[in-house]
Amino acid sequence: MFNKRTKIKALLATEPAGQEVTVMGWVRTFRNNQFIALNDGSTNQNLQVVAALGLLDDETLKRITTGTSLKVVGELVVSQGKGQKSEVKAVSIEVLGDCDSEQYPLQLKNRPSLEYLREIAHLRFRTNTFGAVFRIRHSLAFAIHKFFNDKGFIYLHTPVITASDAEGAGEMFRVTTLPFDNPPRNDDGSINFKEDFFGKSTNLTVSGQLEGELAAMAFSDIYTFGPTFRAENSNTTRHLAEFWMIEPEMAFYDIEDNMNLAEEFIKYLIGYVMSNNREDLVFLAQRLADEEKQLPQDKRSEFGLIEKLIFVQSNAFERITYTEAIDILLNSSHYKKKKFQYEVKWGIDLQSEHERYLVEKHFKKPVIVTGYPAAIKAFYMRMNDDGKTVAAMDILAPGIGEIVGGSQREERYNNLVERMEAMHVPVEEMQWYLDTRRFGSVPHAGFGLGFERMVQFVTGMTNIRDVIPFARTPKNCEF
Amino acid sequence: MFNKRTKIKALLATEPAGQEVTVMGWVRTFRNNQFIALNDGSTNQNLQVVAALGLLDDETLKRITTGTSLKVVGELVVSQGKGQKSEVKAVSIEVLGDCDSEQYPLQLKNRPSLEYLREIAHLRFRTNTFGAVFRIRHSLAFAIHKFFNDKGFIYLHTPVITASDAEGAGEMFRVTTLPFDNPPRNDDGSINFKEDFFGKSTNLTVSGQLEGELAAMAFSDIYTFGPTFRAENSNTTRHLAEFWMIEPEMAFYDIEDNMNLAEEFIKYLIGYVMSNNREDLVFLAQRLADEEKQLPQDKRSEFGLIEKLIFVQSNAFERITYTEAIDILLNSSHYKKKKFQYEVKWGIDLQSEHERYLVEKHFKKPVIVTGYPAAIKAFYMRMNDDGKTVAAMDILAPGIGEIVGGSQREERYNNLVERMEAMHVPVEEMQWYLDTRRFGSVPHAGFGLGFERMVQFVTGMTNIRDVIPFARTPKNCEF
Repeated sequence: MFNKRTKIKALLATEPAGQEVTVMGWVRTFRNNQFIALNDGSTNQNLQVVAALGLLDDETLKRITTGTSLKVVGELVVSQGKGQKSEVKAVSIEVLGDCDSEQYPLQLKNRPSLEYLREIAHLRFRTNTFGAVFRIRHSLAFAIHKFFNDKGFIYLHTPVITASDAEGAGEMFRVTTLPFDNPPRNDDGSINFKEDFFGKSTNLTVSGQLEGELAAMAFSDIYTFGPTFRAENSNTTRHLAEFWMIEPEMAFYDIEDNMNLAEEFIKYLIGYVMSNNREDLVFLAQRLADEEKQLPQDKRSEFGLIEKLIFVQSNAFERITYTEAIDILLNSSHYKKKKFQYEVKWGIDLQSEHERYLVEKHFKKPVIVTGYPAAIKAFYMRMNDDGKTVAAMDILAPGIGEIVGGSQREERYNNLVERMEAMHVPVEEMQWYLDTRRFGSVPHAGFGLGFERMVQFVTGMTNIRDVIPFARTPKNCEF
Repeated sequence: MFNKRTKIKALLATEPAGQEVTVMGWVRTFRNNQFIALNDGSTNQNLQVVAALGLLDDETLKRITTGTSLKVVGELVVSQGKGQKSEVKAVSIEVLGDCDSEQYPLQLKNRPSLEYLREIAHLRFRTNTFGAVFRIRHSLAFAIHKFFNDKGFIYLHTPVITASDAEGAGEMFRVTTLPFDNPPRNDDGSINFKEDFFGKSTNLTVSGQLEGELAAMAFSDIYTFGPTFRAENSNTTRHLAEFWMIEPEMAFYDIEDNMNLAEEFIKYLIGYVMSNNREDLVFLAQRLADEEKQLPQDKRSEFGLIEKLIFVQSNAFERITYTEAIDILLNSSHYKKKKFQYEVKWGIDLQSEHERYLVEKHFKKPVIVTGYPAAIKAFYMRMNDDGKTVAAMDILAPGIGEIVGGSQREERYNNLVERMEAMHVPVEEMQWYLDTRRFGSVPHAGFGLGFERMVQFVTGMTNIRDVIPFARTPKNCEF
């Protein structure tokens, strides 16, 4: 057994009484050949390790630099210095792994930019910013599972490889084992996908919703939490080719139940992180405030990060219809001054600039928009009685835009088939999906939450590539 | 808001006192035009709904068949009949969705086989067997997150699409947006992957371990839980092309710590399910016993399902070296009677028949085998002092075979590079991985648990396709 250690987070919560402890971690700084700031990733707080003069020989002293890994045995005592309650008075210090300071990119002197850290994503976990971001990402993931588990939802792993492309949510990646050089062909020259691994043409999923509906028709309440993919050539701060999505699906729910659950869910997640990651949030709030100091006054957020989270958590989300949203936009001075780049009229798909206006300028809080025109929404959404809008809902969040998209599903067999035909969805191939409407159909609803957007929202990171461990974007697939 | 309902699981745990309740669900059976067994997926227990004679007109009575979805308002009262404590005396019954009994494949009369249910995987969630299996799958997933969260591990989403193929764990699926018909080519005629979405050739991941190690070098303890892929043409009851894997990675761990954690983990998962899914386990134990009655005596399990779980949970796993395992096999009467199909000698990769002999015949409990020959194991495993074995560990479980594979990793830079070169792993492309050994390297270890094999182990389902919602196997990618 390797020597038992105490994690620094636990140690810092312990009363110092001279007890012997063993700690291991990586050196963040080493001052005066005496004071080591040691970090093991359990918290951004470093443990101060004091090496009395004479404890270490010159050779060892030279090896202790930023990034070096150490095993320290010592006594946990009340700290003599400022800035920490306790420290470890070292009895022995062993270098586990050296770190060549000439080569190591993470030197405190030259504070690396987020852009640079993206290039060394394998090392950025060792910085305070990414330590905080990924501990919060973890907490959010756990809170998601806990929220649904506590409510009796079943976690469903929907398939990543799929032969269905009916969701129509975007461009897809092909999955194949056929050789490019000489693929098998049919007599007419087309590619013979019967020879492919799955005996047909297959892709990476864009959504687990349709499969989720199948299970909701048995378990009532299910959720997915898995990777989804878009082969879209969008090099923006808001898009990834590979991202994680949460998709709950609930039988016996209408659109209002759906909105209630989504709002409760988002508030729960925020509350969970505020209770469990206070220290990391404080760090990221300061980071964001520093970042915004570089911006012109009118581009800065109105709220600090933590104030924003408290505000969102403690206020009801605004609920408006699409029609009302269009009216608000048309009546805005922003519109009258021709400040919108895209056209505003009933029937358009709301653009990012419209969503941000509604959320950030008009309501100044999250907004749930319902009742979108049927023509711009997916085939499975339930037609409203007006015959032209559907029971869709999007949740728009300050600084992020769309964070949740959902709907009540069309549970009426005939209406669904009619919509599928009108939208050229292959009815024949989708019999498995239609079976849910043939055998004990029920009103049901669900939504999708983009996990990385939620992490962005909570951490205040402005680029989505900074909230996923290893980003996949056009022309970028490192590590 | 759709009418608020009470879930049947909660209702059955409530004292009946004539209170008004609303329940919704699907009809499992309807007897004597009076007794409805209603199920909503929260439990396998059905709720008995009693429709007094005369409550429903003839037309409605005809619509109530197996599979029909209902909304029932009534009083929760002490049951007059046998088999249940309480029942709902209906005041009103509304049909939410019909179910054509001529078409519906799930009739109780003709109990469908598991094989047939695989073909209608979108409906099999509605059976008792798959209700129990997928509620347990959910519980196991939640228990995994809870186990690691409670210990301060960070959940890491490692990428699904990868350009690295160094793990060498098996055949890979290509991910591409290039057209098959006329792919871009270089001057020498080879495919120009610079034109592909990511600017290089990419695949679906076979393991998140290497990326997990990067994060463990910052957070100390991390785990992954995500989909992994093998493009292998194995049509067996133990293999899937797409499956979920859990891969914890721990800094400051040696092989013994690794074994201790893995054993604690498996026992925790079993204990969690025994506490939280007792009813489903009892059902599946009976199912397995019934299934085994079809088998000849010598093919039946020694233990019932629940006895097996209790036994595994309450006994220490046997720990032996590979060398000891070979000796046991060579000295077995099984070997002497030439009953092994594959050769037994030091240096072989243990075959399934060997693993099963060790676990099921010799030790009759889970076995952890360590110290495998370096030649048959991956490049990243730590070389033992003997220079010929590595600090690998496999956990073998009764009825399943290998359920966990892990190792202490080679943390010594020079040893690692030497092994990579010997095994033709491209050192140049793997600089990001080697950086962990250049900058503050530490002893570390980790393992992988195949999630579906764990679900099989706990549920007693013999075919791996029956423990994942929608199986992906050669020539099969339905739903």
